Amino acid sequence: MKIIRNIEEMKIISKEIKSKGMSLGMVPTMGFLHEGHKSLIKCAKENNDIVTVSIFVNPTQFGPDEDYESYPRDLEHDSKICQMEGVDYIFHPEPDEMYPDGYSTFVIPGEKMTNILCGITRPGHFRGVCTVLTKLFSIINPDNAYFGEKDIQQLAIVRRMVKDLNLGVNINGCPIIREEDGLAKSSRNTYLNEEERKAAIILRKSILKGKEFMDNGEKNVEKIRKVIVDSINSEPLAKIDYVEIIDFDTFDRIEKLSKNTLIAMAVYIGKTRLIDNLIY
Amino acid sequence: MKIIRNIEEMKIISKEIKSKGMSLGMVPTMGFLHEGHKSLIKCAKENNDIVTVSIFVNPTQFGPDEDYESYPRDLEHDSKICQMEGVDYIFHPEPDEMYPDGYSTFVIPGEKMTNILCGITRPGHFRGVCTVLTKLFSIINPDNAYFGEKDIQQLAIVRRMVKDLNLGVNINGCPIIREEDGLAKSSRNTYLNEEERKAAIILRKSILKGKEFMDNGEKNVEKIRKVIVDSINSEPLAKIDYVEIIDFDTFDRIEKLSKNTLIAMAVYIGKTRLIDNLIY
Repeated sequence: MKIIRNIEEMKIISKEIKSKGMSLGMVPTMGFLHEGHKSLIKCAKENNDIVTVSIFVNPTQFGPDEDYESYPRDLEHDSKICQMEGVDYIFHPEPDEMYPDGYSTFVIPGEKMTNILCGITRPGHFRGVCTVLTKLFSIINPDNAYFGEKDIQQLAIVRRMVKDLNLGVNINGCPIIREEDGLAKSSRNTYLNEEERKAAIILRKSILKGKEFMDNGEKNVEKIRKVIVDSINSEPLAKIDYVEIIDFDTFDRIEKLSKNTLIAMAVYIGKTRLIDNLIY
Repeated sequence: MKIIRNIEEMKIISKEIKSKGMSLGMVPTMGFLHEGHKSLIKCAKENNDIVTVSIFVNPTQFGPDEDYESYPRDLEHDSKICQMEGVDYIFHPEPDEMYPDGYSTFVIPGEKMTNILCGITRPGHFRGVCTVLTKLFSIINPDNAYFGEKDIQQLAIVRRMVKDLNLGVNINGCPIIREEDGLAKSSRNTYLNEEERKAAIILRKSILKGKEFMDNGEKNVEKIRKVIVDSINSEPLAKIDYVEIIDFDTFDRIEKLSKNTLIAMAVYIGKTRLIDNLIY
């Protein structure tokens, strides 16, 4: 396994791989890899000749008051995981090389997909995501890229972007990986103290309460939403950012369940913002 | 020569060309080809194994009050020119295939390069240009792309975009091709009636007056600008959109001539908006 820090070097290596007719899978990450990332890497390994993992804490997708500086980083630990999982290349560029002086071009997803869910409290976040992914896809030129379904809005936006810009990368969504008690794995879980960690299961628990309600035939979205909101509010350490139930195909807010309904939430546990979702 | 109308087919052909190790040159155009385009094609032919010309009147780079519908189109005439010039492929997609229902992603260049010159009276124009070029570059994946220096702001913005997004295409600027009397060749020149056609030489004439002033040692930008503006205003059919003198490297407005000064103008002759420029 090789760690590549230079854009031009990564381009040359990727070109060589493609010129040999080998398939190239890519897992874009911000590092601090956990079981969720491992499952993406495994999926990439199974379906591609060569696998590149990018590790880049992307400054343009953090807001000014967000945790860019404190976001956890551990390249040594990440390298070990990648090595164990049979990754061929880690691409780990410096922020200054990705965004040099005078940098000014951004890729902007449509408002309909960003003026909702995480896009409301994280303005500019998906602009940063789309921009860095357009760059990474250009540099690495993968046949396949793998994304977790935990960041479900990101997955939908990236799919749309790749289709719109004809980027020619297959975007693969992989199921959420959870702790034993149901908490979705996330690099940000490391921010939680013991008490908060226990409280954090309220996200999954509340989604399942809503699901049970739906399984029992409830189709009224506002009623389902209320069950979920009340459940989260029963946890004193939890503070809701949003709980939304939308049509996953159109990103429209709905009153009755649709064929492909997305329940998505962002909840603060103490100061840590966690997300979870369910497609029903 | 083949005319390709389908995005997927164009992608497959371009992939084959690249997989054979052949170099691929691309000339992006909106069709109605003239000597200016021919010079770009010639340059592409000289420096690449295969040349693809895209012909696509891109709706996203026209404002609501601009000439998208009336923009001149003549595929038969364009095909003949391309055939004569030894072009290998024309890529001529339908607007509906380039921008299908639900299309929502845009590539946006930095404000510093767009809040000036043509960007002021054509808001969204360069957003459309950057978006369609990102798409075309993804579909065709050229080694080299060729642009006329007549659209000098476009050339600078595209260079910046390709660098920022790591698109890996060499952007080549080619000199302005002119009519015998100095008028820069443009598909929009066909809009001019006989009287307007004569009046249109005022753009080049006025730039040369400014140049003469600079050749004689004048360094004060406002004085040079006044000479040019007065010259244009001496033509009754001319109405100035802008006359600007800026630093071409930084896109800053300047008071004294810089190492790389750009004189750029847009002038209405009757209802037809023409542009011209000089780098000094």
